[in-house]
Amino acid sequence: MRAVVMRGSKLVVDTVPDPVPGPGEALVRTLACGICGSDLHALEHGDKLAEAARESGSPFALDLSRDLVMGHEFCVEILDFGPGTTSGLRPGDRAVSMPILLRPPRIEPLGYSNEVPGGYGERMLLSAGFLLPVPNGLATEHAALTEPMAVGLHAVEMAKIQKSDVPLVIGCGPVGLAVIAALQLKGIEPIVASDYSPARRRLATTLGAHVVNDPAEMPAIEAFREAAKLRPAVIFECVGVPGLIDRLMTDAPRAARIVVAGVCMEDDRIRPMIAINKELSLQFVLGYAPHEFAGTLNAIAEGRIDVAKLITDRIPLDEVPRAFETLRSPGDQAKILVEPWRS
Amino acid sequence: MRAVVMRGSKLVVDTVPDPVPGPGEALVRTLACGICGSDLHALEHGDKLAEAARESGSPFALDLSRDLVMGHEFCVEILDFGPGTTSGLRPGDRAVSMPILLRPPRIEPLGYSNEVPGGYGERMLLSAGFLLPVPNGLATEHAALTEPMAVGLHAVEMAKIQKSDVPLVIGCGPVGLAVIAALQLKGIEPIVASDYSPARRRLATTLGAHVVNDPAEMPAIEAFREAAKLRPAVIFECVGVPGLIDRLMTDAPRAARIVVAGVCMEDDRIRPMIAINKELSLQFVLGYAPHEFAGTLNAIAEGRIDVAKLITDRIPLDEVPRAFETLRSPGDQAKILVEPWRS
Repeated sequence: MRAVVMRGSKLVVDTVPDPVPGPGEALVRTLACGICGSDLHALEHGDKLAEAARESGSPFALDLSRDLVMGHEFCVEILDFGPGTTSGLRPGDRAVSMPILLRPPRIEPLGYSNEVPGGYGERMLLSAGFLLPVPNGLATEHAALTEPMAVGLHAVEMAKIQKSDVPLVIGCGPVGLAVIAALQLKGIEPIVASDYSPARRRLATTLGAHVVNDPAEMPAIEAFREAAKLRPAVIFECVGVPGLIDRLMTDAPRAARIVVAGVCMEDDRIRPMIAINKELSLQFVLGYAPHEFAGTLNAIAEGRIDVAKLITDRIPLDEVPRAFETLRSPGDQAKILVEPWRS
Repeated sequence: MRAVVMRGSKLVVDTVPDPVPGPGEALVRTLACGICGSDLHALEHGDKLAEAARESGSPFALDLSRDLVMGHEFCVEILDFGPGTTSGLRPGDRAVSMPILLRPPRIEPLGYSNEVPGGYGERMLLSAGFLLPVPNGLATEHAALTEPMAVGLHAVEMAKIQKSDVPLVIGCGPVGLAVIAALQLKGIEPIVASDYSPARRRLATTLGAHVVNDPAEMPAIEAFREAAKLRPAVIFECVGVPGLIDRLMTDAPRAARIVVAGVCMEDDRIRPMIAINKELSLQFVLGYAPHEFAGTLNAIAEGRIDVAKLITDRIPLDEVPRAFETLRSPGDQAKILVEPWRS
């Protein structure tokens, strides 16, 4: 089948072996798969990602010397099941799934596995037990946004946010927008969001931000102070570049909680004394729990999260390498969907 | 009066102006004042301390070009009061106080102020409103440990520790020992503590640690795992040297909470991806609230915190510079008390 292959630090469109479903697995056709900022980071800093996985005892042992098909934000159509597999779904049904394939004793992180392809290819394998049917009437491209939106829901859950808190969302790319959507779902007010891009600021407003800030005009922390007065601060770092954690610590009011949802794969420098003086906390977050993933699909299906405007492009496999280039420089794009069936 | 003066990055014993109490202030005689690890850090990294204070909007603006008398862990005898000052205490009474002098609109951090001397001198000024009488029968040198022990109580409060959690205390200097004492007060079990010094490990046991580890024999995290099994980890960083936060993040189990009670004044390097992979949190802590300070004095007076063995030396002013040298290399010392009246 055709797929976008990560080979070293390059993306190439190539032919890869057709996946064959084993027991408990579904063979599926990829209908749509979002490009995630983590994929860009992984392409640029794959060595750091592999090192961190190794050093943090992660089961996800990436081998950069071997090919890899990324893509972990997908909506699929079921084609077939492996031997002896039971499922409430049938071939032809649409589904989403957390990007994890169980192959005891291994767990394959779909999109970052050397063993099985992710969503930037025509077909994938999914664990039958993880399949969630896409409700009738929910567009495929909206269902494909379940994964990135679940990341926002999880970050907000981990923040243990209270109605008295005021959130400041730094960066309105897909992660920041997902955080804004989750804050709005919880009825938090006001939500303050900051991004250099006017298009992303408009999306932030669409998803529920009450105050949007252009940091080129005014420091984000000033916009926050005007809106929050003296209420407690919860700052969501949704960018993931070196230096940002230290800058947020420097800007943060006393006792602020900083939730690190941006994925910085490089080494970073902090000045602990700044955080000590203000008794800050940092909560690092990753992924979501199964109930958060399912809850996000429901919220999208019921229209409680309005994802329609998040999709800024839909492209075939051939255009993926170019799209990665486009997304590397800050711009107006939010979510680009890869549609491998498109030519 | 005689005092140990911090002049640039040197300590010299010199004569400084006699302090004169203003309204609301007490003139006191320093009976005992503990040497704090932060004072060692401040002498070595005063520029970083000043920079951090400035950048974190702290009211404590240190001027390193001017003399300073450090010392913020004291027990005193009251000599006199400033004009129009009322107090329940009288000259001759012994007292402790949080190391803060209110001089509206300024707040002087006693021991880090260019305006008023700290406890490494014969006399000091204290805010009459902050004076806490030392209960009859409580030894002066034990009362002087209220401040450092309150730091441990506060760190444990900030950790929001539960009975199901297992704490790992990294470093059994005065901060680590104070944390152990506070954990024991809360009935937490088991308390795992790690230090290279056999003497400090013995003190850790005295103060309530159930498992003590020599990291030269076995990594602290292994000792922790044996004791904690799969219970949640709360790691107290009580050392304050660059690189330690990253090492603890690397060793920590998934979802661990790291409480940073060690005061690292230098720049530090972290790898956020390690913390992201494991969804770690960092809580930076500093000082204590007034009720925590008063509660610590009570706990010491009632014998619920046994501080007697913490005091490893008692020295006159002349010996302070040498004691700072001794404390710079890791050793068996815990708390050294300065007794300015001693010659």
